[in-house]
Amino acid sequence: MPGNSFGKALVLTSFGESHGIAVGGVLDGLPANLEIDPLFIQSELDRRRSGLDFFSSPRTEDDKLEILSGIYRGRSTGAPIAFLVYNRDQKSADYDHLREVYRPSHADYTWQQKYGIRDPRGGGRSSARETLVRVAGGAFAKLFLQTTNISIRAGISMIGGFQILHPVSRITQPEILAFLEQLNASGDTTGGVITCCITGVPVGLGEPVFDKLQADLAKAMLSINAVKGFEYGSGFRGSSMKGSEHNDIFVNEGGVVKTKTNHSGGIQGGISNGEEIYFNVAFKPVSTLMMEQETITTAGETTTFPGKGRHDVCVVPRALPIVEAMAALVLADHLIRNGAVAK
Amino acid sequence: MPGNSFGKALVLTSFGESHGIAVGGVLDGLPANLEIDPLFIQSELDRRRSGLDFFSSPRTEDDKLEILSGIYRGRSTGAPIAFLVYNRDQKSADYDHLREVYRPSHADYTWQQKYGIRDPRGGGRSSARETLVRVAGGAFAKLFLQTTNISIRAGISMIGGFQILHPVSRITQPEILAFLEQLNASGDTTGGVITCCITGVPVGLGEPVFDKLQADLAKAMLSINAVKGFEYGSGFRGSSMKGSEHNDIFVNEGGVVKTKTNHSGGIQGGISNGEEIYFNVAFKPVSTLMMEQETITTAGETTTFPGKGRHDVCVVPRALPIVEAMAALVLADHLIRNGAVAK
Amino acid sequence: MPGNSFGKALVLTSFGESHGIAVGGVLDGLPANLEIDPLFIQSELDRRRSGLDFFSSPRTEDDKLEILSGIYRGRSTGAPIAFLVYNRDQKSADYDHLREVYRPSHADYTWQQKYGIRDPRGGGRSSARETLVRVAGGAFAKLFLQTTNISIRAGISMIGGFQILHPVSRITQPEILAFLEQLNASGDTTGGVITCCITGVPVGLGEPVFDKLQADLAKAMLSINAVKGFEYGSGFRGSSMKGSEHNDIFVNEGGVVKTKTNHSGGIQGGISNGEEIYFNVAFKPVSTLMMEQETITTAGETTTFPGKGRHDVCVVPRALPIVEAMAALVLADHLIRNGAVAK
Amino acid sequence: MPGNSFGKALVLTSFGESHGIAVGGVLDGLPANLEIDPLFIQSELDRRRSGLDFFSSPRTEDDKLEILSGIYRGRSTGAPIAFLVYNRDQKSADYDHLREVYRPSHADYTWQQKYGIRDPRGGGRSSARETLVRVAGGAFAKLFLQTTNISIRAGISMIGGFQILHPVSRITQPEILAFLEQLNASGDTTGGVITCCITGVPVGLGEPVFDKLQADLAKAMLSINAVKGFEYGSGFRGSSMKGSEHNDIFVNEGGVVKTKTNHSGGIQGGISNGEEIYFNVAFKPVSTLMMEQETITTAGETTTFPGKGRHDVCVVPRALPIVEAMAALVLADHLIRNGAVAK
Repeated sequence: MPGNSFGKALVLTSFGESHGIAVGGVLDGLPANLEIDPLFIQSELDRRRSGLDFFSSPRTEDDKLEILSGIYRGRSTGAPIAFLVYNRDQKSADYDHLREVYRPSHADYTWQQKYGIRDPRGGGRSSARETLVRVAGGAFAKLFLQTTNISIRAGISMIGGFQILHPVSRITQPEILAFLEQLNASGDTTGGVITCCITGVPVGLGEPVFDKLQADLAKAMLSINAVKGFEYGSGFRGSSMKGSEHNDIFVNEGGVVKTKTNHSGGIQGGISNGEEIYFNVAFKPVSTLMMEQETITTAGETTTFPGKGRHDVCVVPRALPIVEAMAALVLADHLIRNGAVAK
Repeated sequence: MPGNSFGKALVLTSFGESHGIAVGGVLDGLPANLEIDPLFIQSELDRRRSGLDFFSSPRTEDDKLEILSGIYRGRSTGAPIAFLVYNRDQKSADYDHLREVYRPSHADYTWQQKYGIRDPRGGGRSSARETLVRVAGGAFAKLFLQTTNISIRAGISMIGGFQILHPVSRITQPEILAFLEQLNASGDTTGGVITCCITGVPVGLGEPVFDKLQADLAKAMLSINAVKGFEYGSGFRGSSMKGSEHNDIFVNEGGVVKTKTNHSGGIQGGISNGEEIYFNVAFKPVSTLMMEQETITTAGETTTFPGKGRHDVCVVPRALPIVEAMAALVLADHLIRNGAVAK
Repeated sequence: MPGNSFGKALVLTSFGESHGIAVGGVLDGLPANLEIDPLFIQSELDRRRSGLDFFSSPRTEDDKLEILSGIYRGRSTGAPIAFLVYNRDQKSADYDHLREVYRPSHADYTWQQKYGIRDPRGGGRSSARETLVRVAGGAFAKLFLQTTNISIRAGISMIGGFQILHPVSRITQPEILAFLEQLNASGDTTGGVITCCITGVPVGLGEPVFDKLQADLAKAMLSINAVKGFEYGSGFRGSSMKGSEHNDIFVNEGGVVKTKTNHSGGIQGGISNGEEIYFNVAFKPVSTLMMEQETITTAGETTTFPGKGRHDVCVVPRALPIVEAMAALVLADHLIRNGAVAK
Repeated sequence: MPGNSFGKALVLTSFGESHGIAVGGVLDGLPANLEIDPLFIQSELDRRRSGLDFFSSPRTEDDKLEILSGIYRGRSTGAPIAFLVYNRDQKSADYDHLREVYRPSHADYTWQQKYGIRDPRGGGRSSARETLVRVAGGAFAKLFLQTTNISIRAGISMIGGFQILHPVSRITQPEILAFLEQLNASGDTTGGVITCCITGVPVGLGEPVFDKLQADLAKAMLSINAVKGFEYGSGFRGSSMKGSEHNDIFVNEGGVVKTKTNHSGGIQGGISNGEEIYFNVAFKPVSTLMMEQETITTAGETTTFPGKGRHDVCVVPRALPIVEAMAALVLADHLIRNGAVAK
C-alpha cells in the first residue's frame, strides 16, 4: 500500500528521486479562486536551498519550480495543482562508490531489503531533496492560510547542544558559529531542535479521537527526514508537573474565552482552543559525514567508504521552512475538513 | 470529515461515549484464519481497568467485552470484527454540576465550540473510557503479531519527576509511592513517561516518505488522551550529539546484518531495520482534580467547581496497555500492507 | 485491505453475519445538531423487512434497531453513530445441510477460496441481511437530506420481464401477481429493475474526474447484492441516439438555468446540474430456489441439495429502500464534501 | 474533498487541463522490480490518439509520454511513478468564442457553478484529454498484470444503433461506415457500447461488501467521460430471467471448479470465481457538434454558437484503451490488496 500522499481534505502526493529526472507533487483539494503568487512559492523553496551559509553544503541547486496545472489566470480552479523541479545536478557518477555500500543511518539498507531494488544515486527517493516537494506544497497551503489569521513561524531553539531562548531563523551567536565551523572542519555534523509557533488559529480545528490536531502534527513532523521527536505545549517537561500547576484556567477577557496559562499548547481534546499552538521538533545530526566510515557492502562484507559528495553540518537551518510547510498542510487540511473555503 | 478510524490496511473504527449506552469498535482487515482467544482480549481490557492500585480511581467498571461478528468457530473469517462494552455505570446525575461548566484542560470547551452540542456526562466522547476501544482493537492486533516474532512491552520510565532506569509495569519504590499518596491526599495529580520496546520486528516495515513507521507511531501515540510528546531512538537527546557518535555502524554478525549501536531506534529512512524499536511517550498530569478549581461557565461567567467524581492520581500505569495497543495496531497495519497474512 | 466502509466524508462501516450475534454499523461524519428520529430509522428498516407480501419469504424478523452512540438529547453530536440489530433468528441447524455445499450463484465458493474459512450459516457476511445496515445508515443520511430540498424515491419499473411505465412501490397488476404466484408455487424466482429519481438536488454535487456523482452512485448500486447493472439519464438507450437529439439545451427560465430535455440525468461532467437525477438498477433473479439443484460439495464432488430455508420470489420490492439508502449515502457524502452542515 | 485519485492499493492521481501546460499522473503502489517497457506505455497512448480514422478528429497530438520517477535501470523501484505529456496544441484563442458560453451537455455550467471559476480552453479539466492519464496509468497496471495470466480485451459491440455480435476493435462494416460518414458530413455524432472481457483472473479478487469487484469496475467505468451505463454478466437482460435459468451450476472439470454457464460474469458475492469477467459500457453521443447550437451565455442570455474546433463522430473507438486501462487499474488494485507482488 502506497504512502506517498499526505492529508485527507488537502492531499499532497509526492514523487521523485534525488538524481532522477525531477521531483514534484500534486496538491489536490486546494479551494478554488485562491490567488496564487508563484514568486511566493519560489521564495519558500529558496529558503530551504543549500548554499546560504557556510555550514550548508556548497552546491547551488537551481530548484526552479514549474507549475503544470490547476491555475487559470492567476487563480486556483479547484483542479489539482501539479508542480515539479527538474534535477539539473544529475552527475550520478558521483555516487558510483555508494552503489555497493550501505551507508550508516541512511535508508540504503532498509530500502534494499524492503523493495529488493533501489536507486542509489544521492539517496534516491529517501534523499532530503524530497522535502522540496513538501515546501512547495506547504507554500500553496500558506497562501490559503493567508486568507485567515493563521500565521506559522519556526525558529531554531537548540543547535549542537546550545540552547537558544528566543528561537531564531539564523544563527549569529559567535560561540555557536565557532562550534559549527569546527565541526565542519572535522567533517562532522550535529543536530538541533526547531520550535514552531502558530498564532491566529480559530477554535475548532482537529478531530477529537484519532485525528487530533496534535496527532496529525506529530505524524507530519516525524515524516520529515532526520526527525526523532515531537512535543507540544508542556511536552516532556509537563510530565513532571502537578495537575494543579498544569491545568490552564479559563478566563473571560471581555467576551473572549482565553486561558491564563497555555500548557495545553493551544489544543485541548485534540481540538484547537484559540490559544497559540507551539511545538518542538528534534532533528538528529546529519548522517552524511565528510570522513571515512566503517560499514558493510551489499554483499555483507566489512568495508570503509570515504566522505564525499554533499554535506551539511546541521540540517536544522534548512529545515525551518520544511517544518512550517508540514504544519501549514496540517492546518489547511483541518480548515478544509471544517468546511472552510477561500474567499 | 470523520476522524474515528485508524489504520489503512487494518482499520479500527471507534465509537461510544463515556456515559452513553456502550463503547466499542469495528476492526476491519484482520487476516482470516487467525485463532481468537477472547480471554486474552478481556485480559488486556482488565489491564487498563481502574481500581487496581490505590492511586487509580476506586470505581469498578466491569468492562465485559462482547464480540459481535467476524469470528466463526474460534477463528477470524476475514469479515470485520465488531465488539463493544456496555456502560453499566451511567449515573449521569453525577455530572449535572458539569453541564454548564468548562473544566480546565478538558475537551469541554473545544468540543462545544466545534460542534455546538456536546454530551457532558463524564467527558462524553473525549473521555479516557474511549481508550478501552483501542486496547480491545490492539489486543486483536497482538493476536496477529503472535503469529510472528514481534513482541511489544511498555513500562513506566518516569512518574511525577522520578526517573526509573529500568521501566516497570508496577510502581513499588517507596519514595514514589509516598509521593503519589501525598498527591492523592491533596486531590492533586501528576504525569509520567512510558517507554515502549518492540522486538522481533522484521526488516521492511514502514513506508519511506509520509507513512514512515515512526510517523505512524507518533500519530498513534499523540492520538491518546493526555499525551504531550513522542520520541524514538535517540530522541531529543540525539539532537545534541555529533553525527560521528550518532551513526549506527552496520556489522555482519554471522550473516545477519546488525548495527553496533541503535540510536536509530530500529528504524532507518522510515523503514524498520530489524533492531529493537523503542520510543518514549510523555503524559501530562491528569486534569481532573479532587479540589475546587476556578473556571468559566458556558455562559462565560467566572465560577468555581468542586472536585467530584472519578479521579486518577496518575494515568500512566493504566496507559501501558493503551500504548502497547496503539503500537500493535501500527505494526499489524504495516505487516498487512507488506502482504503478511495469518498462518 | 478492508472493504467494509463506504463514503469519504460520511463513512458507513458495516459489520455482522446473517446468523451471528448481530449486524450493525458505524456512521461517522454525520453533521452535529441534526434531529434524530429513531422511529423514522426503524420505519425504513421495516420497509425492507420480509413478510410484507406473499412473494416475500414468510419469516418475521424483528429487526429492532438499537442506537448505541453519537446522539445526545435527540440530536447528533458529531460523534460516530453506532447501531445494531441483534439476530434473533439464529437456528443455525437450518443450515447444516449447506456446510459442505457450494450453492450456485452464491458467495459460498468464492468466499471459501478467498479466505480459506467461511461462516456458512445463512450466507454469513454475504447474506442479504447485511443490507439492513445500509438501510439504517441511509436513513440517517435521509434525515440529513431532509434539511435540504433533496428527495429520493425508488420504484419498480420492471419485474419478471413485465415493464411498468410508471414505477411503483407495490405490485398490484393482476397479471404480474399471477406470474409471481406461479413462480412461487414452482419454487422459482425472477429479477427486475428499480428506477430511482432524486429531485431538489442543488447544482454542484460530485467531483469532475474520478468521483463523478454517477460513478459514486454506480459503485453504491453495484455494491448491493444481486445487482447486475446501472444506467443513468439516457443510459444504454442513449448510445443509439444522435448528439443533436441527445444534447440537453440550456434555457433561462426566469433567472433559473434549466435544460429543455434531461438525457444527462441531472449530471454533467460528473457534477449535478440541478435537474432531476434518475437511474435504473438491474437485479438478477434470487439465487436461492425452493427446488433441488445440482452443484458440487466443498470436496469437489457432484451432488444435489434441496430447496430449504428462506426464499423470496423476487428481491426487488424489498430492495427499494436499499437503493434509496445507498443513494442517500452518496448524496449526503457529496453534500458534506461540499461543506454543507446541518441547520 | 479531492476526487482526483483512483484506487486503494494502487493509486492513480491525475492532473492537468486540456490546454494547460501538461496532463499527467502519479501512480503509487506499483510493486517493485517490475520491468517497465516505455514503448508499451507509449503504444497504449497511441491507441487512444485521434486522427486514426476518418471519424475521429483530424488533429494530430503528439502525446509523447515522459516518465519522471520511480524507475531505475528499467525496473520499478516501489517509488511513485510520475509521468506527463506536455500539451503542444495550446492555441487557446480557438476557444475564445466559448469563454462566455455554456455548451450543452458539457461540464461548462456545472464546473462554473461548483467552483466559481473555470478554465474554458478545450473543456479544461473536464476534457477527454484527461483520459490520456488513465491510459498511461492503466498501461503500467497492464505490465503488472502481464506477470499473471490476466488478459483484458475491449471491443465495440454497438455503434450508432448497429449491434455487432462479435465485438471488434475497428469498424469495417460498410453500412456502419456509411452511416458514420453521413453523420460526419452533417456535423452530428453518435454513441455506442463497448464490451470488455477479462480472462485468466484468479479466484478471490474483490471484497465481499462495498468493494465488490463489480462495484469497483462500475465506478471505474462511470468515471469515464460520456459513459452512461454499466452492466456485467447477464446485466439488464438477466433481470427478466428465472432463477432456475440464471443460476450458474458448479461442475468439477478434472479437479478445476468451473460453472456450466456464466451469467454471473465471473464474479459471485463480489469476488472473482475464475470464470471470464465480462461487462458492457454505454457511451452517449459526443456532445461537441459541428453545427450551430442554441444555448445560454454565462450571463444567462439565449445565444447560439457555431460548431468549431475538435470533433469526433463517435468516441467509442478511441475509448477502447480507456476502458481497458480502467479495468486494468481495478484488477491490479485488487491483486495488490490480496497481497500480490511482481515476480
